[in-house]
Amino acid sequence: MLGAIEAGGTKFVCAVSPDGQKVEHREEFPTLSPEETMVTVYHYFEHHPVESIGIGSFGPVDIKKTSPTFGYIEETPKQSWQHFNFLGEMQRHFPKIKFAFTTDVNAAAYGEFKKGAGQGVSDLVYWTVGTGIGAGVILNGQILQGYGHPEAGHILVKRHSEDSFIGVCPYHHDCLEGLASGPAMEKRYNTSAKNISENSTAWVIEAYYLAQACMTLTLTVAPEKIIFGGGVMHQKQLIPLIQKEFTELLAGYVKTPPVDQYITSIQLHDDAGVIGGFQLAKDL
Amino acid sequence: MLGAIEAGGTKFVCAVSPDGQKVEHREEFPTLSPEETMVTVYHYFEHHPVESIGIGSFGPVDIKKTSPTFGYIEETPKQSWQHFNFLGEMQRHFPKIKFAFTTDVNAAAYGEFKKGAGQGVSDLVYWTVGTGIGAGVILNGQILQGYGHPEAGHILVKRHSEDSFIGVCPYHHDCLEGLASGPAMEKRYNTSAKNISENSTAWVIEAYYLAQACMTLTLTVAPEKIIFGGGVMHQKQLIPLIQKEFTELLAGYVKTPPVDQYITSIQLHDDAGVIGGFQLAKDL
Repeated sequence: MLGAIEAGGTKFVCAVSPDGQKVEHREEFPTLSPEETMVTVYHYFEHHPVESIGIGSFGPVDIKKTSPTFGYIEETPKQSWQHFNFLGEMQRHFPKIKFAFTTDVNAAAYGEFKKGAGQGVSDLVYWTVGTGIGAGVILNGQILQGYGHPEAGHILVKRHSEDSFIGVCPYHHDCLEGLASGPAMEKRYNTSAKNISENSTAWVIEAYYLAQACMTLTLTVAPEKIIFGGGVMHQKQLIPLIQKEFTELLAGYVKTPPVDQYITSIQLHDDAGVIGGFQLAKDL
Repeated sequence: MLGAIEAGGTKFVCAVSPDGQKVEHREEFPTLSPEETMVTVYHYFEHHPVESIGIGSFGPVDIKKTSPTFGYIEETPKQSWQHFNFLGEMQRHFPKIKFAFTTDVNAAAYGEFKKGAGQGVSDLVYWTVGTGIGAGVILNGQILQGYGHPEAGHILVKRHSEDSFIGVCPYHHDCLEGLASGPAMEKRYNTSAKNISENSTAWVIEAYYLAQACMTLTLTVAPEKIIFGGGVMHQKQLIPLIQKEFTELLAGYVKTPPVDQYITSIQLHDDAGVIGGFQLAKDL
């Protein structure tokens, strides 16, 4: 049996699967302090025994295997989780279980790669656009990681001519996340993104920034497919708008697959993270 | 004996090395039509026999090994080279020699990685800033390539508040290359970059854009080192200015190695491309 933990800043999901695709059982609970949360995690896997577990964690996390703090959560606004040895505590509690450890976004990217919209390609980018913006990159079937893991949500962007919003990123103000995350839309328009008419220019501006996100990753890692998920992407009008803005921005400079196949929606939706976790566990 | 071809848009360099580092002999000649140029290349390697050759070519080139046009030059402003089967012609002429084929920037990046400023790290980005801007990325010791190869010179950037220059990129106007290449500086200031005083704000603006280039690659591929080469980088004041702007822009959002080790100058200078070619040949 395979296990997965999707450790989010707001909620945790634990799940088990016999084959890495079917979610046989899943449980969600709120993210409290590490001590309180981990008790629930331990309890879950004591009652649902598995051979291996794939963990996708909120972060920033240290996912460099050669690092002395591999598997730790790093500097995070969630004070009690700072420098928490997530992987180490799991290994200490379950010495016979094998573990894979990566970011929440990487796990979802891997899920989409193996069992979702990315099946059949070897290189993809997965963008999640919600409370924050993040990207997971798969190249030659492997999760991309260098010195750290991509934090592409904070790339700088060229401003839309009709947008003078200062941005919500506490580090960079008007980086991608500062201008195009869910909270950025809410603060700019003083209402939840859900309440904005689907024909509003707001979505054109949003698509302009997300198209730049696609353009930057196209030019830096050259994937075969770019997949979007996350709360903001529930707006169905966004994908065609992003495709249009992307085509105009890139201006044919490099070849990509046809844009309607190149830039697409997530397929596994809420299961992408746990299925990615199962698949990482399966690879062990 | 190992061979290297650095195929630039203006000049070709052919060279041989006994060990992949020492340049035993090199010859430069102008890039004419493919027919004329290749005759000189054939002639060179007929007189300097080698077992394997690493080619770094101007492009865009097709470097996807599984592609039916692997080794071809693609759409390029140099009309006579369009769709030229560079690798295929070399293989046809020298059926007993083994070949590696990549972009000119990737070859230089690989040279710096193996024998230059990138020795000892496993992940790096090499930026060349000259007539154009390009990046080569090495991750886990391998040249990064997905659907195509990085064309990071054309990423979009946030404008410097004191810069209203329209940009020189025929595709995107004010992308990175449009605002920060040698020709961009020349056109903006109406003089060669060489003639601009080293204390001029021009270098601060230039560093602001190149720092964004570093920030984007830090956030998307997370290298251990970023190395700059190319004609514009002969201005020694640039590296410290880029380090300063980078530190301010990133605002500590992600960890990188100390900035004076993280962002550095090329070590192999004009030899990076051929040494990279030798090293690629040696890997075969």
